[in-house]
Amino acid sequence: MALVVQKYGGSSVASADKIRNVASRVSRRKDEGNDVVVVVSAMGKTTDELIRLARQMTDQPDEREMDVLLSTGETVSSTLMAMALKSSGHPAVSLSGLQAGIQTDSTHSKARITGVEPSRIQDELSRGNIVIVAGFQGFSPSMDTTTLGRGGSDTTAVALAVGLEADVCEIYTDVEGVLTADPRIVPDARKLTTIGYEEMLELASYGAKVMAARAVELGQVHSMPILVASSSTEAPGTLICNEEASMELRRKVSGIAHDTNVAKITIVGVPDHPGIAKDIFEPLARAAVSVDTIVQNVGQGAVTDITFTVSRTDLVKALSIVEPVSKQIGARSVSSDETLSKVSIVGTGMQNTPGYAAKMFRALADAGINIELISTSEIRITCIISEDGVVDAVRSLHKEFEVEFEQPA
Amino acid sequence: MALVVQKYGGSSVASADKIRNVASRVSRRKDEGNDVVVVVSAMGKTTDELIRLARQMTDQPDEREMDVLLSTGETVSSTLMAMALKSSGHPAVSLSGLQAGIQTDSTHSKARITGVEPSRIQDELSRGNIVIVAGFQGFSPSMDTTTLGRGGSDTTAVALAVGLEADVCEIYTDVEGVLTADPRIVPDARKLTTIGYEEMLELASYGAKVMAARAVELGQVHSMPILVASSSTEAPGTLICNEEASMELRRKVSGIAHDTNVAKITIVGVPDHPGIAKDIFEPLARAAVSVDTIVQNVGQGAVTDITFTVSRTDLVKALSIVEPVSKQIGARSVSSDETLSKVSIVGTGMQNTPGYAAKMFRALADAGINIELISTSEIRITCIISEDGVVDAVRSLHKEFEVEFEQPA
Repeated sequence: MALVVQKYGGSSVASADKIRNVASRVSRRKDEGNDVVVVVSAMGKTTDELIRLARQMTDQPDEREMDVLLSTGETVSSTLMAMALKSSGHPAVSLSGLQAGIQTDSTHSKARITGVEPSRIQDELSRGNIVIVAGFQGFSPSMDTTTLGRGGSDTTAVALAVGLEADVCEIYTDVEGVLTADPRIVPDARKLTTIGYEEMLELASYGAKVMAARAVELGQVHSMPILVASSSTEAPGTLICNEEASMELRRKVSGIAHDTNVAKITIVGVPDHPGIAKDIFEPLARAAVSVDTIVQNVGQGAVTDITFTVSRTDLVKALSIVEPVSKQIGARSVSSDETLSKVSIVGTGMQNTPGYAAKMFRALADAGINIELISTSEIRITCIISEDGVVDAVRSLHKEFEVEFEQPA
Repeated sequence: MALVVQKYGGSSVASADKIRNVASRVSRRKDEGNDVVVVVSAMGKTTDELIRLARQMTDQPDEREMDVLLSTGETVSSTLMAMALKSSGHPAVSLSGLQAGIQTDSTHSKARITGVEPSRIQDELSRGNIVIVAGFQGFSPSMDTTTLGRGGSDTTAVALAVGLEADVCEIYTDVEGVLTADPRIVPDARKLTTIGYEEMLELASYGAKVMAARAVELGQVHSMPILVASSSTEAPGTLICNEEASMELRRKVSGIAHDTNVAKITIVGVPDHPGIAKDIFEPLARAAVSVDTIVQNVGQGAVTDITFTVSRTDLVKALSIVEPVSKQIGARSVSSDETLSKVSIVGTGMQNTPGYAAKMFRALADAGINIELISTSEIRITCIISEDGVVDAVRSLHKEFEVEFEQPA
């Protein structure tokens, strides 16, 4: 008997039929003798509809209120799932983020989980219940509802799996697992059987939409195995786990990630003296704007240009912070561009093996794609390019590195 | 400076524009220097839509889950109201039933309020916030969400007014106050300026939909003045309060109530011995089926017939309880009729004044309406009639007792 935490995304619970389908998968798992905790997202387009409602009230809805509003989406789907299970004879109970003990900080709309207090879940499991937890939501020290931001339900699932010391956390979604590239762009992209946390983290951070990077990170810190699989087929999926055991078999390149939600901000003519970067990036961090690639060009004389990328959704907020700061520090001007994309190659095998960057740059050049910015980690190389070039870029990189992908299992 | 609790019903918050309209009424009240707590219902048809969603999952949705599901309707409207207020520069915060301290028992779908612990509301008021409370919802001793059943938001409002020792509880709705009859049936029905709790209780219990009887009862127990008025006009409304001061001016008849949500159950051939009524009505009470008029016909020999009314919505549940019980106690058969209505005349002036019942029965007879059952209280006479006759009955009774209504203020 195992303790399993499963998560089903919005498209897997988008209708009554889909919820019933998920309920029958869940109950099968329970009938096999496991304790099952299920984390659900809001049904299909519910979150969009709630956002639309809020925008009818005001252009800038208050974030505390927005969190309470959006959390109702997951509450609704959790109760419907519990009803479906009970009506098929399986004892079940839905719990809110508060009841499930998902403690967070007070950063509304992007709260971080600070702890999990799962005693209510354990009580319900010991009474034989399947426990359905509303994903994406938690509660702050002042007992207010918070939401976890992008990938919130994935994070709820992994955090609960860790807090409950579950045997595995299973993320069910509309893809069959982790592929070597987005199959809508590369039709012959291959599914990986396993992938290391680090590689998955780079893939997720750099645009592979399979699951949220922060959830993978949480899994990595606590060595929680995470299975990513399809909610509509029985295909085996991809297991994200520690791959140290198979160090020698590490793939050179695991996959190609891309992300079209990229905007660039350039501050031109920044006086080049110590502390200037802090002046710019501290206010952004305080406003919870996540800054990605940062490039400081070599200065001509006493001034320099600083360029960085943010998600497009954060661009307006970021500019509203950067513009006054840039005046204050005596920079010449601020410009921005929101027609950019990121494309990345990821693989632990690139570590200590020269030549991957050169190979990537050549492949992009051969496809006629101009590189605007470059950023790298030990196991990743990312190029910022124009959004027009992203499909060609992913295809040519997938072709270039194809022989280096793992063979299908 | 006063402390005011206001309640706005579903039709008053049915759209973004209506919510903005209510927000501007609320903020005007705050700007006049009052502390304001606002209780909101779910927007328009939201509750119906949530019920429809649940029925897509199962014919008999679990009541605990149903409560969590339905409570999201009020949560949504409370956040939208808070957003509207904040965007117009009025500090506001939405609170759930749990946060507002609405403690209830564990009777899901029909929970009773057991206490109010309003410290969070008081904190928010002292910080200058307008406090928006999601109506209809509370929490049980096991910290589960409960809903208060019919008239739940009215009850939330009065309970909070009592718990906060507010100066007045204002119920805003789609009518201008308490009228002498339903204006859709009697176009020249008049608005009352004031009405006593007892009369209002009889009117509300016997079908006047202005506000929930249980909320009036709560107001009466704690002598909380309740204003019922329109959310769309500035007309003064009707004040429900203690009328002892004006005892001499008591109206003879205050109004005509009617209710078409009536079903009748008759248990035929019940052995007539002590304890038999308990055997029938105890299981109904345990299942929270509210039984209205009970009539036990004079027995012929050792058997008797027992007839009682329930709301039509409870008929299936009631029959499922009564049928096995009637077999058990050796009754001959059970029959039911769900095509009935109630019509009542209510007025404190009828006390100790003979002739009102006779006058009522004659008016109904003149209109060709047959009376199936009769029940009375000190200040009310109710006849159960066929639903076909209800419009004629209300009109002829309004005409008959017109001269006895209070003159317009």
